[in-house]
Amino acid sequence: MPTTKAYAAFDAKSPLAPFELSRRDPKPNDVTIDITYCGICHSDLHQARNEWQNASYPMVPGHEIVGRVIAVGSAVTKLEVGQIAGVGCMVDSCRRCSACERGLEQYCEEGMSLTYNGFERDKKTPTHGGYSKQIVVDERYVVAVRQSGSLEGVAPLLCAGITTYSPLRHWKVGKGTRVGVVGLGGLGHVAVKLAAAMGAEVTLFSSSDRKRDDAKRLGAHEYVVSTDAAQMAKHHGRLDFILNTVSAEHDLTGLLLALRLDGTMVMVGAPEKPLALPVFPLLMNRRAVAGSGIGGIAETQEMLDFCAKHQITADVEVIPIQKVNEAYERLVKADVRYRFVIDNATLEA
Amino acid sequence: MPTTKAYAAFDAKSPLAPFELSRRDPKPNDVTIDITYCGICHSDLHQARNEWQNASYPMVPGHEIVGRVIAVGSAVTKLEVGQIAGVGCMVDSCRRCSACERGLEQYCEEGMSLTYNGFERDKKTPTHGGYSKQIVVDERYVVAVRQSGSLEGVAPLLCAGITTYSPLRHWKVGKGTRVGVVGLGGLGHVAVKLAAAMGAEVTLFSSSDRKRDDAKRLGAHEYVVSTDAAQMAKHHGRLDFILNTVSAEHDLTGLLLALRLDGTMVMVGAPEKPLALPVFPLLMNRRAVAGSGIGGIAETQEMLDFCAKHQITADVEVIPIQKVNEAYERLVKADVRYRFVIDNATLEA
Repeated sequence: MPTTKAYAAFDAKSPLAPFELSRRDPKPNDVTIDITYCGICHSDLHQARNEWQNASYPMVPGHEIVGRVIAVGSAVTKLEVGQIAGVGCMVDSCRRCSACERGLEQYCEEGMSLTYNGFERDKKTPTHGGYSKQIVVDERYVVAVRQSGSLEGVAPLLCAGITTYSPLRHWKVGKGTRVGVVGLGGLGHVAVKLAAAMGAEVTLFSSSDRKRDDAKRLGAHEYVVSTDAAQMAKHHGRLDFILNTVSAEHDLTGLLLALRLDGTMVMVGAPEKPLALPVFPLLMNRRAVAGSGIGGIAETQEMLDFCAKHQITADVEVIPIQKVNEAYERLVKADVRYRFVIDNATLEA
Repeated sequence: MPTTKAYAAFDAKSPLAPFELSRRDPKPNDVTIDITYCGICHSDLHQARNEWQNASYPMVPGHEIVGRVIAVGSAVTKLEVGQIAGVGCMVDSCRRCSACERGLEQYCEEGMSLTYNGFERDKKTPTHGGYSKQIVVDERYVVAVRQSGSLEGVAPLLCAGITTYSPLRHWKVGKGTRVGVVGLGGLGHVAVKLAAAMGAEVTLFSSSDRKRDDAKRLGAHEYVVSTDAAQMAKHHGRLDFILNTVSAEHDLTGLLLALRLDGTMVMVGAPEKPLALPVFPLLMNRRAVAGSGIGGIAETQEMLDFCAKHQITADVEVIPIQKVNEAYERLVKADVRYRFVIDNATLEA
């Protein structure tokens, strides 16, 4: 089996450290990718530190992967050597349940194979992610990157991009839709760009005034400090749809009241603890709170092509792998605008 | 102004007591109804005791009203003297906002005029409900009762019926839909009958085993004790739709997990405190929690006609008005199967 340089978490407490990772021998449908950049998602940190109580060690995190195809199996038709490719949050699924058949592999009835901290379909071979130099993935779960220019801002689209794009599409956001985005972080800043590019009128809700200029620059039309009751009251019943990217505990009442009749707020953040759900605001305007998890493979390709067309990338801070632990500390403090991305060439430094 | 005998709450603490109520002089569009029966909704108790902090006294509760039309104004076309009519939770709305224009008066942008503990459109004349002998209502907010047979089981349809019928219709429950109903009380027992009549496969969730026989008799196909993890696990991902009628604090996790991909749980109970909403079950299958409040006037008529066709009424215990305070005490203990209904003739006893 080929080996590749990586960084891994070895337990919940220690910093990530170098690791020599074995990748499988490529099968006929496999694509081998030399990873150029890998984004750092907040869920990397949650899992590395076992905050979701499902960690399996050693763990090589990373599911915002872009790189160059360096080998393809004999049966591969979708990609060829030299092409730029992406891998997101999953590397396999059952492929035969009704969700998989509908292109909704993320909701696979047997459970998808997560890109890391998961298992191959044999339910025993652990998967390892993009904090590594190479990865071997079945072509069905690889997407083509057709974006021109630099790739570092593309990597985060594989999770932050699809996680926000999918609900915006599913709930039919388009020209003139009044969309709220809650939180301007890794997910939120991409959501603002996507919704604006779809023609929506975007209102950004943030807990402070600090990101007002950024929000406007990214494409938001309105900026509301969600802790200011007077500002919130002005938006009562105004919005068609809200995308809520906040994982921290926060008050949902004012946000729900901002929805019009039959409006939906979709959660894409994953708070560890239950949120307090006030029921009256739901009853009053037949409002809904829904959840959405990443997106399917075909939709991920569609999202990347949409981003290429509209020249959308994430705003990133590129770091060498050696600074990954420092980046985690800064991530906890939300001290990044707006996504850390690892330059994977530094794994060979 | 004509007067009518009634029972009223005079403050949050005292028992309801007799009250001489003035009704307005009928206008050209008004219908005067001699009330035969009035159901006791749990929200009567919440409001009489000011548990929603919005009580205005004296308060004559009651919004599940059936009776006989005894006078009509010169412009009334919808109803005639002698006909049986019903009045539900609202007696007016702005009539010109987009919600009113769509027949969704319950979501009127200016706020509907509640049947009691509310105000007429002048925002100052208090409204009074069905714990009274007569009521005067604009015909636009009166529905025709075409049900044959006894009327006492029809009264609760004006709130419990429409509150459950409207979301079942809005979320397109029909033949073969797998519907969960949570709680077998005033709302839940009507929901089971309605969903079964619509052709759905109904699963009743209750916190204990005590109501199993009743649930089956009412039309439920499955009965699940929601506090039994093993029973709940069997229903994981099975249901298309859940109607949750429980106002008390309860765990939503197992119920949400019972929904399939894109399934929705609709809350129709109105808990005073926020419920704990676990977000992971929403993310995992793009599930939603929504709310729904009563229904519009046209839909209320449709519901009554549906009930007449399918011979659906509420299961009731008829009481004289003199026992209303005792009924409230029993309601707190959920000691009724399944709705108290006042025999309004006893107001004249």
